Amino acid sequence: MAHDNIAAALDELRVGPDFKLADIDPDSKPGYSGSKDDAAAAFDDNDAELDELQQKLFANARAGNPDVPTVLLVLQGMDTAGKGGVVRHVMQGIDPQSVSIASFKAPTEEERKHDFLWRIERALPEPGAIGVFDRSHYEDVLIQRVRQFAPPEEIERRYGAIVEWEQKLVSERNFRIVKCMLHISKEEQGARLLERLERPDKHWKFNPGDIDERGLWDEYMQAYEIALTRTSTDAVHWYCVPANRKWYARMIVKQLLLETLRSLELDWPKADFDVEEQKARLAAS
Amino acid sequence: MAHDNIAAALDELRVGPDFKLADIDPDSKPGYSGSKDDAAAAFDDNDAELDELQQKLFANARAGNPDVPTVLLVLQGMDTAGKGGVVRHVMQGIDPQSVSIASFKAPTEEERKHDFLWRIERALPEPGAIGVFDRSHYEDVLIQRVRQFAPPEEIERRYGAIVEWEQKLVSERNFRIVKCMLHISKEEQGARLLERLERPDKHWKFNPGDIDERGLWDEYMQAYEIALTRTSTDAVHWYCVPANRKWYARMIVKQLLLETLRSLELDWPKADFDVEEQKARLAAS
Repeated sequence: MAHDNIAAALDELRVGPDFKLADIDPDSKPGYSGSKDDAAAAFDDNDAELDELQQKLFANARAGNPDVPTVLLVLQGMDTAGKGGVVRHVMQGIDPQSVSIASFKAPTEEERKHDFLWRIERALPEPGAIGVFDRSHYEDVLIQRVRQFAPPEEIERRYGAIVEWEQKLVSERNFRIVKCMLHISKEEQGARLLERLERPDKHWKFNPGDIDERGLWDEYMQAYEIALTRTSTDAVHWYCVPANRKWYARMIVKQLLLETLRSLELDWPKADFDVEEQKARLAAS
Repeated sequence: MAHDNIAAALDELRVGPDFKLADIDPDSKPGYSGSKDDAAAAFDDNDAELDELQQKLFANARAGNPDVPTVLLVLQGMDTAGKGGVVRHVMQGIDPQSVSIASFKAPTEEERKHDFLWRIERALPEPGAIGVFDRSHYEDVLIQRVRQFAPPEEIERRYGAIVEWEQKLVSERNFRIVKCMLHISKEEQGARLLERLERPDKHWKFNPGDIDERGLWDEYMQAYEIALTRTSTDAVHWYCVPANRKWYARMIVKQLLLETLRSLELDWPKADFDVEEQKARLAAS
């Protein structure tokens, strides 16, 4: 992934105040002129660096350093957009001891008794971990808006509540949050759903309800555009990642994770013991 | 890992009633005549199969199949034995969505108020997951025995309690439990501790208390021998894995995991919808 243009592409994919989802072509691959095969060869290029950065983060948590950061990757997208594939292919390169994956389904009865952020708060990764949300609190302004599961004024309130909560995570609890919408076209979703129906080893991934949601495609796109525009802040950006090419989306998310870990500028924790003294004890043992 | 002799070696490494720890040479590599380089090349040979088996397990859990199995790998060993390395190198090949890692430290004040199995029960992986315990309830008959943190009659009681609890997990909750002791020599531990002291990027892994425990090496070996012999049952075996060569221990644990997943004989879940009907709905959408 040592492609200078990929880093530049991240700026292009960042959601700003004038964001229009229709401007993003799900087939495109901004910043990358190579082929799928090139990308496959390059995908593991930064693994050693990623590994060392993750180890430093983990080490600082283990050493009990105060204010150790927590990295949180939020993944959103329509059914079949490739969230699970990102988790598998990007996170698989990282020491599983420090990875925490939370997957959000429809809220349970118990969860519905609380504010929408209650169950999200409980699923936050520990300090020093790299957490992934496969779907998230954004469902509460996406499906809940489209399906009118909550009244308009409650949906309205939630945008502000999300921004406030995320900013507090950053400023008070040292979170680094990266939010990615994996953006596919309706045609691509159709092809992917068909594959799930045609392959018996993929039937378990299919749910008849997926076609009901697909029928509300335009409403979902509108809900995404509003959610991304209103909750992409200086503290916590959204990235809208073209995802018709799975390999491109995975490359971008991996690059975002790498940049986030680099930005922490972590050192190895200092020893809280006298190294020479311990060497002498070891020699005598 | 397509080496016929490795499968045979698993039988050899399984702990039976006449187990003597002194009979196991930590430098040995039963069932494998190849070199470290051969092993590195072969290590990923079964990844596609491992991946498919894990996906089937995960799919059955997602599909809500009753009695979906849970796989639990218990890792024990002296400090520096390579437990963390096994987690990294073996589990990293598996979809992180279905991996659950629990690491056990000294019990907290809250945990000490309960029976020793209370915190272990709470850390059990979900049905369909592949869980790893990095240390476990066996600490309660290892360090607790050596350090006399509990009276002899309580230690004595725990062997039986462990056997009973594990057998219930297998017979009533469909767990498949694989227990591995990573067995290193005292000399090898000395070399690994020295490396942690010599490399500033490894200082965080060192704790002066490690040398105190090292001073009780023989007592620990005795406690391991007793624990493994008394708790290796027909339902839940122990494997004593020579671990002075890290690559050999990782190869064995990966093979054990593979054999365990194969033994589940899982199929892909059946569709609970009419496939042709859904294809027609999709075409119309």
